[in-house]
Amino acid sequence: MLYQKNNLHGGDSYQEFIDLDYSVNLNPYGLSPAVRKAAAEALESACAYPDPFCRDLVAAIAAREQVPETQILCGNGAAELIYSFCSALNRLERSRGSVGTAAASRTGPDSSSGTLSGTRKAVIPAPTFAEYELGLKNAGFGVCRYFLDRRQGFLPDEGILEFILRHRPAAVFLCNPNNPDGQLIPRELLRKLLTLGKEQQFRIFLDECFIDLSDQGVSMKECLAEYPELFILKAFTKNYAMAGIRLGYGLCSDPELLKRMAETVQPWNVSVIAQKAGIAAMSDPEFPERARALIPSQREYLSRCLKDLGFEVCPSQANYLLFYGPTGLDAELRKRGIAIRDCSNYPGLGPGWYRIAVRLPEENRRLAGALKEAVRTLQKEP
Amino acid sequence: MLYQKNNLHGGDSYQEFIDLDYSVNLNPYGLSPAVRKAAAEALESACAYPDPFCRDLVAAIAAREQVPETQILCGNGAAELIYSFCSALNRLERSRGSVGTAAASRTGPDSSSGTLSGTRKAVIPAPTFAEYELGLKNAGFGVCRYFLDRRQGFLPDEGILEFILRHRPAAVFLCNPNNPDGQLIPRELLRKLLTLGKEQQFRIFLDECFIDLSDQGVSMKECLAEYPELFILKAFTKNYAMAGIRLGYGLCSDPELLKRMAETVQPWNVSVIAQKAGIAAMSDPEFPERARALIPSQREYLSRCLKDLGFEVCPSQANYLLFYGPTGLDAELRKRGIAIRDCSNYPGLGPGWYRIAVRLPEENRRLAGALKEAVRTLQKEP
Repeated sequence: MLYQKNNLHGGDSYQEFIDLDYSVNLNPYGLSPAVRKAAAEALESACAYPDPFCRDLVAAIAAREQVPETQILCGNGAAELIYSFCSALNRLERSRGSVGTAAASRTGPDSSSGTLSGTRKAVIPAPTFAEYELGLKNAGFGVCRYFLDRRQGFLPDEGILEFILRHRPAAVFLCNPNNPDGQLIPRELLRKLLTLGKEQQFRIFLDECFIDLSDQGVSMKECLAEYPELFILKAFTKNYAMAGIRLGYGLCSDPELLKRMAETVQPWNVSVIAQKAGIAAMSDPEFPERARALIPSQREYLSRCLKDLGFEVCPSQANYLLFYGPTGLDAELRKRGIAIRDCSNYPGLGPGWYRIAVRLPEENRRLAGALKEAVRTLQKEP
Repeated sequence: MLYQKNNLHGGDSYQEFIDLDYSVNLNPYGLSPAVRKAAAEALESACAYPDPFCRDLVAAIAAREQVPETQILCGNGAAELIYSFCSALNRLERSRGSVGTAAASRTGPDSSSGTLSGTRKAVIPAPTFAEYELGLKNAGFGVCRYFLDRRQGFLPDEGILEFILRHRPAAVFLCNPNNPDGQLIPRELLRKLLTLGKEQQFRIFLDECFIDLSDQGVSMKECLAEYPELFILKAFTKNYAMAGIRLGYGLCSDPELLKRMAETVQPWNVSVIAQKAGIAAMSDPEFPERARALIPSQREYLSRCLKDLGFEVCPSQANYLLFYGPTGLDAELRKRGIAIRDCSNYPGLGPGWYRIAVRLPEENRRLAGALKEAVRTLQKEP
């Protein structure tokens, strides 16, 4: 047994052969040629320590995002920024004197819903990306889950505002579009949330890692200056399919938060290769745009296939789809070399829920065929 | 201003032109060809998320180090492991109930010496590598500095044992050979420390990142099984000159510690490129050996040059040298495109202390010439 955490997402391509990985939601065109070239060239300077300030990369992100450099923090993948946000939030809360007992709570039992006493809490929707909860618990926060409505395809609704008022969290985590369902959160709701955050003094952690691959997905970055409570998470992982290189960034107009986040990690957290790859990615905005143009029709094709098989399919504007099908479907597909994301362990979901990525047309046709075969096999079994 | 920590070590090659960087202590032969090749090939699979368990890499380290796989944890550079060791230690201490007030202490003033009340402490020598203290403070520990004797060239002595008994720390950090002076700690002292650690229940964090480039440096890894209190830090950074790729590992026979350390970081902390590069490095043990063979004579050459200039030079068995010379020397060398490490901000040192790496013969001759020129210039100034 190796000592690493147990929160493995998606298919484990390092343990077994996976021919087509539908369990991770990356740009279907794969690693961008510009990024690959820059990463290869970066090996020439891989001897030296990376720039701890990521100066050139931050300048490139600032130019592309049209956000001041001082509002940007880079990390060793978006996941690192989730963890450092939670740690920094804990420190800021403590220095405000409102989490005196956070330390004690960490060693206590994990409270994952309901009103917690004595521990600062964060609100997260359910279902959503698992790392928020892990990062929060790691930093000593309790988690209050706002369960999304299956009949709405798990679209966050205005009920969350009242839920927040009841729980008085230190932060609210939202993923836009939400993972695993792929629905975009209405801008009106996000606006109301920001107003409430300012009023009630909680932070809004808004994960926009998939927004650039979503239909008409629009970032909330224009609100950064007005709302220092807002932290936006973005990743290179998905748009440029460079998950193995590790690079993400956060946007926020509160210098105190970014400073604390930077302090919780080692100085050389972003490799030389990731920095150079990121700079190349920023100067190639067409690459994700090409994928964004492909995705709607392919998602429609996959959605139709799933519905034809009698599965419940959630509406999605993203590069992935959530559906409810027969248990054992993932194992059947695995026998055919295809991995899909089993979502049975997501709070708010359960056995039978699966997420698939939207990939290239020929791959999607292969998946469609494999799905039909898998269903036939499952129907034959007792 | 960018939001990153201020603990920049060595020359800032990203801010100004540095032709010869003597401020970082890497293998003088640069990036190993085997590592470069493996890293370039790894770009083919850089789309996918890295293996969160680093399975193949751990197997390669186990084979090379002759340590069980379960005693190995990989990190995004050795620096990440320093931070996660400190965080994990804090949690373990808290779950033992002995750091009830650690949380409070983090927001209080930093106590850096003397007996601290109400906060768990760690003992570190002074001078030593700055990241231990930053990692400890980040995790809420107080730091007690054991000041090393300049007349002994800052060699740790048995006085540290009594110092430990007086301060009753949760952990003792040692660097072998010590950074910045390069002296190897006597094995007898390390043995006594391990015995004391078992008796008094403190952990020993032993940084062996430079041991494979040191004359007759021998790892304490044979003591791992007997002493679960021992944590050994090792890096690929130095031996294989791959600081920009980021890869380090820790060795320890206490599964609880490694489990906690793994929990404090995100699951995909070691990139695909670092994992593949590390595997290649492990199968190329000759590469650091070649450097190890070169270093003693070159270190001797540099040491003689420094002494000829009238500087005080500490004895060293490592690939770097600590010396005391005129203030302003680093700025003079910088004008000549050469960076050396100004050690004036090390606790236990001060203005006039510098550290240089041992590099290739022709480079060292160039440094020697530049040093002479710099001294002449400084002597001419008022």
